[in-house]
Amino acid sequence: MTVVGIIAEYNPFHNGHLHQLEQIRTQFPDATIVVAMSGNFLERGEPACIDKWTRTKLALSAGVDLVVELPLVFCVQPADRFALGAVKILKELGVQKLFFGAEHAAYDFNLMAEKTMKIHGDFSKYNESYAAAYQRAVHEKLGYSVDQPNDLLGLAYARANRKMGSPFELIPLQRVIAGHHDLFLREKKHIASASAIRKQLEKQNVREIRKYVPSWTFNSLTEQRITSWKNFWLLLYYQIKTSSLERMRKLYDVSEGLEYRVKQQTEKLPENAVFDDWIKAVKSKRYTYTRLSRLAVTILIQVTSEEVRKIEEDPYIRLLGFSDKGRFHLNRAKKRCRYPIITKVDKKTKEDLLAVDYRAGTVYSLVNKVPQDLGRFPLYFE
Amino acid sequence: MTVVGIIAEYNPFHNGHLHQLEQIRTQFPDATIVVAMSGNFLERGEPACIDKWTRTKLALSAGVDLVVELPLVFCVQPADRFALGAVKILKELGVQKLFFGAEHAAYDFNLMAEKTMKIHGDFSKYNESYAAAYQRAVHEKLGYSVDQPNDLLGLAYARANRKMGSPFELIPLQRVIAGHHDLFLREKKHIASASAIRKQLEKQNVREIRKYVPSWTFNSLTEQRITSWKNFWLLLYYQIKTSSLERMRKLYDVSEGLEYRVKQQTEKLPENAVFDDWIKAVKSKRYTYTRLSRLAVTILIQVTSEEVRKIEEDPYIRLLGFSDKGRFHLNRAKKRCRYPIITKVDKKTKEDLLAVDYRAGTVYSLVNKVPQDLGRFPLYFE
Repeated sequence: MTVVGIIAEYNPFHNGHLHQLEQIRTQFPDATIVVAMSGNFLERGEPACIDKWTRTKLALSAGVDLVVELPLVFCVQPADRFALGAVKILKELGVQKLFFGAEHAAYDFNLMAEKTMKIHGDFSKYNESYAAAYQRAVHEKLGYSVDQPNDLLGLAYARANRKMGSPFELIPLQRVIAGHHDLFLREKKHIASASAIRKQLEKQNVREIRKYVPSWTFNSLTEQRITSWKNFWLLLYYQIKTSSLERMRKLYDVSEGLEYRVKQQTEKLPENAVFDDWIKAVKSKRYTYTRLSRLAVTILIQVTSEEVRKIEEDPYIRLLGFSDKGRFHLNRAKKRCRYPIITKVDKKTKEDLLAVDYRAGTVYSLVNKVPQDLGRFPLYFE
Repeated sequence: MTVVGIIAEYNPFHNGHLHQLEQIRTQFPDATIVVAMSGNFLERGEPACIDKWTRTKLALSAGVDLVVELPLVFCVQPADRFALGAVKILKELGVQKLFFGAEHAAYDFNLMAEKTMKIHGDFSKYNESYAAAYQRAVHEKLGYSVDQPNDLLGLAYARANRKMGSPFELIPLQRVIAGHHDLFLREKKHIASASAIRKQLEKQNVREIRKYVPSWTFNSLTEQRITSWKNFWLLLYYQIKTSSLERMRKLYDVSEGLEYRVKQQTEKLPENAVFDDWIKAVKSKRYTYTRLSRLAVTILIQVTSEEVRKIEEDPYIRLLGFSDKGRFHLNRAKKRCRYPIITKVDKKTKEDLLAVDYRAGTVYSLVNKVPQDLGRFPLYFE
């Protein structure tokens, strides 16, 4: 039996994701498909438009066999470290083949990883953004640019895979039609990017997206409260206004005086400012939109450096849902898995291992009003 | 010239307050009336229904000569310590006579203060509330109960006055008709309690209160966004959910494990809980509604014990508004005043002396959308 892994957000699950699963099933009809999915806050620094349970349900409905949640601490980190966290988890779950979408599926990601292994991501001396410095370093090593978001993510997966002793065969899939940042739904073609779909959701044009998502996604989107930074902005604004510099300094990725910049620029905002005003006010050559969005999640959930370090050292696997096949696989994988597998959050785990994810869940539920952790059990899809 | 002092909330300013000012002017036609007013959060632990600037304007419109803001740290403390803070400030402003409403204006508050001076308010060993223990101690010393809210506050002022060397002549005024907690507007009589008026405001029955407030209050209430705990509840809920026990312990009045109780009881609340559910969940024999409401303000604004101690040791006077007479008096009083008088909040004061009040103002303005401190100047009423 082939065990296939995917690293996903499913924000929301759409026809492009369905197409990816179909391709996997064409190549490996007997595959068990394991997905490491971000929880309620995602790697680009934004709240998920629908919660992790709904997104798990959508994935299971599409034929995914096992969904586990990526700890939030991986999601507030740059692509390289995010990828490493996800790869570690999928490795422990016995994944053999990692599928990922890429703008250039013909790239030899293994070779690219090999050539760029010496890049360590310590760019603090450059007066430019982490992302820009990283891309420049990649260009230097390869002799050509990698600048498309999925290609870059693919390279990050490949580097993480190599770092972990190459447990996976990498299988890039050519992305069809919609680029990751495409903001318009392409008429006549029935695939649109998740960003384009969210854009329509923000405008409350749910009907517009009908043909770009499976029916089960469409139904969920019409039933659920769709969330975005708009819903969390007041809480973030309040948090920054009441945080001391001392407290801010303890948070992940707040260093080199960033706490002063955040406090000062936030103070200059008018009372009716919105999230984008905040980003624009704090943005600089050094601090990009994405990095600040991730910082916003860090501040909102109050994720400390200490917490990130602890979980990076001792990761865990949080089970969100499974099919029969997924359960069968999990029972086998368990025997060799070195990380604790959490099937439900209780009094102990919520103050210990799961503290950060639990906090993220409670904050998310202040907006969507649906409990996220205590009393929730993995979804079983027959 | 007589200098009269009042300690007030004006939440909102109503006919009862107007009546009090008329009585003062009847007795002392040349009086300069100085008011020490709570800012945007009040001593009973609630957000003001309209902001401090609007309430200052209402007071000046009614003939008050000088309005200064009581530092927030006094307002999160029990009546005794609140009273002491207010008395200190009015003393420095050269007040000679302190007027206050009482349910029993015939009481000899000086004598009562003398007899109860040995009560120090250290009731931590009793398994009952601070308020209940205090009232019992008062009963023991006097041989009779003092249990009406304004009588109790009057006694607190009298005790504070005595403690400060009796700078004031105390002049209790008989409260007319409406008790402090009366929740119904009394028809035909044109005086209602502030609580009764707020109750109607909450129900958005602004018209109902027309005859109980001066026209200038009525106009303000129809123009302003009326705030209550309802508007701040989500921020408080979020703050508790993201606060560590360690951080909670640094806050004022969080001791003897109260931080555990607050965290645990808050966790049990459903996602759609409201402020009153929170109070009910945390309430016990020991922790009364009022004490917990004050704690809620402490948590919302993140007021630490250290900050309370610092300001108690070195108070300041924040000027909110004045008439010509008030300005004349202030210029004279300044010469003997030992506390700094703040007329505007700037970069330095907002991070130093005024840090807590500034934070309270920024949080309040997240809801009412009106800047509270930076760029605001004392109101001058010709």
